[in-house]
Amino acid sequence: MPGSGKSLLSSILKEKGYTVIVMSDSVRKRFEKDARHGERLMDYARRLREIYGEGIVARLSIEELKGREEKVAFDGVRNLAEVDEFSRLGKPLIIAVHASPATRYERLKRRMRADDSVREEDLRRRDMEEIALGIGGVIAMADVVVINDSTEEEFKRRAMEALGKLD
Amino acid sequence: MPGSGKSLLSSILKEKGYTVIVMSDSVRKRFEKDARHGERLMDYARRLREIYGEGIVARLSIEELKGREEKVAFDGVRNLAEVDEFSRLGKPLIIAVHASPATRYERLKRRMRADDSVREEDLRRRDMEEIALGIGGVIAMADVVVINDSTEEEFKRRAMEALGKLD
Repeated sequence: MPGSGKSLLSSILKEKGYTVIVMSDSVRKRFEKDARHGERLMDYARRLREIYGEGIVARLSIEELKGREEKVAFDGVRNLAEVDEFSRLGKPLIIAVHASPATRYERLKRRMRADDSVREEDLRRRDMEEIALGIGGVIAMADVVVINDSTEEEFKRRAMEALGKLD
Repeated sequence: MPGSGKSLLSSILKEKGYTVIVMSDSVRKRFEKDARHGERLMDYARRLREIYGEGIVARLSIEELKGREEKVAFDGVRNLAEVDEFSRLGKPLIIAVHASPATRYERLKRRMRADDSVREEDLRRRDMEEIALGIGGVIAMADVVVINDSTEEEFKRRAMEALGKLD
């Protein structure tokens, strides 16, 4: 969910030798050539899903691989159809990062502090868009949930502990 | 999600002086008088939601209150419309209990050991039914997630710690 701190988890995975594919980047490449005037990345991705199916962003992300990677992480899974696509590569492990809405909204407001107009209502609407895509199902089926309600150091410690169990 | 250990959380809340309303119990009362032949409780609840709206089970559960309770917990929220219903009583806090599918399936198999025919496929299908109801969105928007991947004692300790923060 936005503001939960999943990009921090990606950094940790990179440090541990994972190739991290940021799923929105693989959409962004097409978006830049293909988007409609004024279309948001998120709406473009929704349009791709309507045309090519719920798993399309996962398939585009798999295309990014060179085929020589040993440990791969995909950052930004939005629905369980994407997880099914990844299972063609091997048994995928779902890692979710959780923070409460109150904590996430505080972080997002801080991050966007240049723009004072950011309202809690808008952040909540964005959450509902993510949930409509199916992200809740992915979190519900996660193999690991790392809670990010404290400091960055504490989150790193928890993430390393969780990843240690998976190795 | 099934097998995550949320009824254990209910026991802890009762010990802490909460009135716990088990949402499926408030459906069961009607179910016993009203169900179709061979209908499962879950399918009956789905039918209620189709007729009376997504928040119906929450409204039936609110009806169970005597109006004199100080601290109330509702056990078994399935979608965010139910959370909206509860917000008429005051600001609700969502507590989710998480365990990985592997852990949950192991527990469920143990619990149903009299019936050897229980297959992982069936447990997964039940998970997908829960997710279709919208439970993932509730987990994604949880104020607190308590991880239940260890012993009962450790879960109790984590739950008490999390509840302590909320008081």
